[in-house]
Amino acid sequence: MQKNLIMIKITLPDGAVKEFNKGVTGMEIAEGISPRLAKEVLSISVNGDVIDLTRPIYTDSHIKLHKFEDTEGKLAFWHTSAHVLAEAIESLFPGTKFGIGPAIENGFYYDIELPEGRALSENDFKAIDKKMAEICQKNEKIIRKDISKAEALKYFEEKGDEYKIELISELEDGTITLYTQGNFTDLCRGPHLPSTGYIKAIQVLSLAGAYWRGDETRKQLTRVYGISFPKQKMLEEYLLMLEEAKKRDHRKLGKELEIFAFSQKVGMGMALWLPQGTVLRDRLESWLSSELKKRDHEMVKTPHIGHVDLYKTSGHFEKYGKDSFQPIQTPQEGEAFMLKPMNCPHHVEIFKTKQFSYRDLPYRMAEFGTVYRYEQHGELHGLTRVRAFTQDDAHIFCRPDQVKDEFKKIIELIMYVYKVVGFNEYKAQISLRDPEDNTKYIGSDENWAKAEQAIQEAAQEMGLETTVELGEAAFYGPKLDFIIKDALGRNWQLGTIQVDYNLPERFQLEYKGADNETHRPIMLHRAIFGSIERFIAVLIEHTAGKFPLWLTPDQVSLLPISEKFNDYAKKVLDLLKNYDIRGKIDDRNEKIGRKIRDNELKRIPYLLIIGEKEQETNTISVRRQGQGDLGSMSIEGFAEVINNEIKNTFN
Amino acid sequence: MQKNLIMIKITLPDGAVKEFNKGVTGMEIAEGISPRLAKEVLSISVNGDVIDLTRPIYTDSHIKLHKFEDTEGKLAFWHTSAHVLAEAIESLFPGTKFGIGPAIENGFYYDIELPEGRALSENDFKAIDKKMAEICQKNEKIIRKDISKAEALKYFEEKGDEYKIELISELEDGTITLYTQGNFTDLCRGPHLPSTGYIKAIQVLSLAGAYWRGDETRKQLTRVYGISFPKQKMLEEYLLMLEEAKKRDHRKLGKELEIFAFSQKVGMGMALWLPQGTVLRDRLESWLSSELKKRDHEMVKTPHIGHVDLYKTSGHFEKYGKDSFQPIQTPQEGEAFMLKPMNCPHHVEIFKTKQFSYRDLPYRMAEFGTVYRYEQHGELHGLTRVRAFTQDDAHIFCRPDQVKDEFKKIIELIMYVYKVVGFNEYKAQISLRDPEDNTKYIGSDENWAKAEQAIQEAAQEMGLETTVELGEAAFYGPKLDFIIKDALGRNWQLGTIQVDYNLPERFQLEYKGADNETHRPIMLHRAIFGSIERFIAVLIEHTAGKFPLWLTPDQVSLLPISEKFNDYAKKVLDLLKNYDIRGKIDDRNEKIGRKIRDNELKRIPYLLIIGEKEQETNTISVRRQGQGDLGSMSIEGFAEVINNEIKNTFN
Repeated sequence: MQKNLIMIKITLPDGAVKEFNKGVTGMEIAEGISPRLAKEVLSISVNGDVIDLTRPIYTDSHIKLHKFEDTEGKLAFWHTSAHVLAEAIESLFPGTKFGIGPAIENGFYYDIELPEGRALSENDFKAIDKKMAEICQKNEKIIRKDISKAEALKYFEEKGDEYKIELISELEDGTITLYTQGNFTDLCRGPHLPSTGYIKAIQVLSLAGAYWRGDETRKQLTRVYGISFPKQKMLEEYLLMLEEAKKRDHRKLGKELEIFAFSQKVGMGMALWLPQGTVLRDRLESWLSSELKKRDHEMVKTPHIGHVDLYKTSGHFEKYGKDSFQPIQTPQEGEAFMLKPMNCPHHVEIFKTKQFSYRDLPYRMAEFGTVYRYEQHGELHGLTRVRAFTQDDAHIFCRPDQVKDEFKKIIELIMYVYKVVGFNEYKAQISLRDPEDNTKYIGSDENWAKAEQAIQEAAQEMGLETTVELGEAAFYGPKLDFIIKDALGRNWQLGTIQVDYNLPERFQLEYKGADNETHRPIMLHRAIFGSIERFIAVLIEHTAGKFPLWLTPDQVSLLPISEKFNDYAKKVLDLLKNYDIRGKIDDRNEKIGRKIRDNELKRIPYLLIIGEKEQETNTISVRRQGQGDLGSMSIEGFAEVINNEIKNTFN
Repeated sequence: MQKNLIMIKITLPDGAVKEFNKGVTGMEIAEGISPRLAKEVLSISVNGDVIDLTRPIYTDSHIKLHKFEDTEGKLAFWHTSAHVLAEAIESLFPGTKFGIGPAIENGFYYDIELPEGRALSENDFKAIDKKMAEICQKNEKIIRKDISKAEALKYFEEKGDEYKIELISELEDGTITLYTQGNFTDLCRGPHLPSTGYIKAIQVLSLAGAYWRGDETRKQLTRVYGISFPKQKMLEEYLLMLEEAKKRDHRKLGKELEIFAFSQKVGMGMALWLPQGTVLRDRLESWLSSELKKRDHEMVKTPHIGHVDLYKTSGHFEKYGKDSFQPIQTPQEGEAFMLKPMNCPHHVEIFKTKQFSYRDLPYRMAEFGTVYRYEQHGELHGLTRVRAFTQDDAHIFCRPDQVKDEFKKIIELIMYVYKVVGFNEYKAQISLRDPEDNTKYIGSDENWAKAEQAIQEAAQEMGLETTVELGEAAFYGPKLDFIIKDALGRNWQLGTIQVDYNLPERFQLEYKGADNETHRPIMLHRAIFGSIERFIAVLIEHTAGKFPLWLTPDQVSLLPISEKFNDYAKKVLDLLKNYDIRGKIDDRNEKIGRKIRDNELKRIPYLLIIGEKEQETNTISVRRQGQGDLGSMSIEGFAEVINNEIKNTFN
């Protein structure tokens, strides 16, 4: 019994249990497992709370150690980096006041106020970077300290930092901690790295203005963004990626390639699809439609608005309140419509126009349905954060015993679509119920258990790489999300498949079973592209505007060497149209070199050069983007080349 | 000189001038021209006012005589018929009070209040019809009388008709007239027929409730609808047409053929396109898109809402006021959006994203753009009167010298489209400025003159049958409307081409001319279908649901004689899909006779019967809707038949 007083049980993620002395730290546990692990570990989860590696653990616990690859590890790393940034700035600009300094998705920032009369500029970055590197090289220990509210207030009053004082005054006594490294002490909850030496590469990236606490009526502070890594090489790769991302920014390319535009007058966050973008969207949509029809989907079209009663029944009315687009009143009292926040209620109303039997299920209804979500002006971003977007939405009404098969079919389709558009790296996340608390979910235990098993089996049988997250399911059902990795290694959640026990209940959906009784169908929601706007944005950045040949608006550009050959070019284009090849003639009065350059910038896959020789021999000279000159070809020969290339994409 | 005092000059529509005695009547003029004409004429326009044939004319006048074929003739005919209806009802139900009784587009009605305790039902129609026939046979003279307000009030007070009293009390003294035939006198402005004998066939059609003066807070009267004709045979034809129209009613067929549905919850007046209807719409839209691309149009896509500022600039904000869908507020003060009442402002904003030179014009921008117009609940009618509809909208930005050529191109396209969908009878109405008053129009005199001439020449050169209406142009430009005649002889305005000098001005549109100066382009608005919803409604009624083969959602239905042949049916359908032939298998466990009947009701053009013999010989037995058995064919042979039939439609 004595032993239990000084020993505790530590359960590892794989279920293995190890005993340690009471008061053991995360770092000691890591060392106990392997010295190599101890070098890589950055923070630890203890019964779900992420804490410093240096904090003692006193009770039996489930733990998980986090490295830089893990989100929790990165957060500790970048949080400490923010403190290093602050220490550097304080040492370079004494008297600077500090707001907040969190880790973010990529790196960290600190909001600061420089002493009166000083302002930060890019010219200061070098000095800050140098100072930060020094602090990291010194490998300063990071020390956590519990402190009373009175002491904390006293410390920052003496320092003269009114922002920290404001933050502390809102905290409860007994919950306040400070973290100190070198000469710098900050109000902070942690967790942090054990010391600054973990950071091998750190750099300031940019500056922005930020209102104190996001409140426009308060002071504007300077937000300093930075990035850091445990290896110098990782920083170099990241900076290269940033540079490449800038070149591929879909807002920049979208404009250059005339894909889309925004107009203040039409309203920000709502894309105007220009002719080239419309071709691209139409190609995507009509191709997906044909794939859906092959897979026995019924296409429907529904209005962009719905009566508020519809959304009261569905539950969306409550959810989309004051922060949303407001209801549309009409001359008739008591009548009001909402811009559709979701397509599901409309599809449910279509399902209700007909009597279904068990033999009619699964019934698969699909639409390119536009939905509206109000986003603050400052949050809008190109096509990835908009106020109106079109989902490639489908709803599958099925019996409980059909869930697994439908999941497999949808997974097959999604994997096929991603292959054809050129997303080759992706994984799936399965979100299940919280096994500790199943009270907050709608639908029977039996159906949940069946569906959760069905989803996992379906994913496995389809050979899909998955992670499983417990407790991440929506209240209305479990789901599976596809996360793709783009050419720059960034993750994007695109496709989703969700089980829904809620709407069938709220709308009292029914079908007649083999037993002649009425039953409630299960609804599956699924999207492949997700939002077409966002999908095209990701596709632009992934391909740098060099879309797959079948999808690209103009597949060829015909470049007559001089005006004399415009007629022959026109003839060639007409012939190519017979082979379903899209293109334009560049009949500007420009030198051929200029024409080649301009059309390459427009990302046209094939440039067809047309001059005396070509006209005489009824041929074209072909240049492939990225491959250069392919020599002379007959029109038919070229059509075969291009159509074979396309055919291979779909196989 | 003496002569001029008693003679007046009457100018006929063809410009011929005839002299008549002062005080000559329309009837006398007609008799002077030809006794036969005198028999057919019903009313007369004198300097633009339509009056009774029996009223004397005292001054030199331009006149036009109206027969039953003319709208003005019909209106007099049906207006008198309404009085005959009232006379019959008064004689059958003494004490009835009368509201208003106008001629309408097809026939006439009278709003009445029967004496306390009495109500009209269909059982009364026979008696009313009989009484009306008697009144017409009596050929009662119709006498017009000017009367003072006091006398008029006295007459109806004695009669006890509070509705007429209310109407009179709002009239100015000196403008009041009564019309009397037989025992019946009515407050009325006319014009009327000379006597009741012109009406050779008259009949009550239906009853409805109607609030007095359309005001829900006032008494509900009984609206009695009737129809009448100058020949018995015309009535018979009309009743047959009504019966046929009822069978073809697109609301009935739309439901039976599962084209569209409405849901109270989604909101009335906004169609849900069911799978079959979506195929139909998609076929229409994708075919028209391909025709537009052949004709150098650029397709775009724009959001369904726009910032109110957009519509303040365009002028639509003022126009769509309290009676419309109200603006959509957002959490941001001062920001509001409108459901798009028109697509033009969005297209203008796209035009403004680019710098255009005279060489880039005409620039043709097209979209299937959905617009929203609030209609009162009671005015909604199937797909012909809705609250959200999609226009096949295009805007052509061009130079003044390009208007004629663009009109010709659009007329060519519209004529081609109507041919392919099967509208073979149509004419066009050209609406020009009022030559007497050109102050109310925007745009230069020179441009108007040029455009008006261009439109007329274009129509003529395209061999289009047109009528010209002076003063019917919009303030922003002249236009040409297409009016098609459906299989039941009913007219529908579908296509329109409009010149617009207004929006280019309001949005300050510009292009760079050959002179290097900036110029303002002209905008042409045009639609071919008009509203796709309305177009499909008309198409359903015109074809009675038997759509052109290329357009029909299911072109074939495969009917296995028993379940044994379902697999072979599936194989045949898959083969047919390779030939782009759409269809379904009717694999219900039903007798073949029942399957044939049901699929004929669904208007499926080709029924393919599949049994032992077909399976053994790799054939199908083909039945054509309306033609019966076409015998046995190979799959390839049948595909050729169907695809040839389609090909012929487009030639």
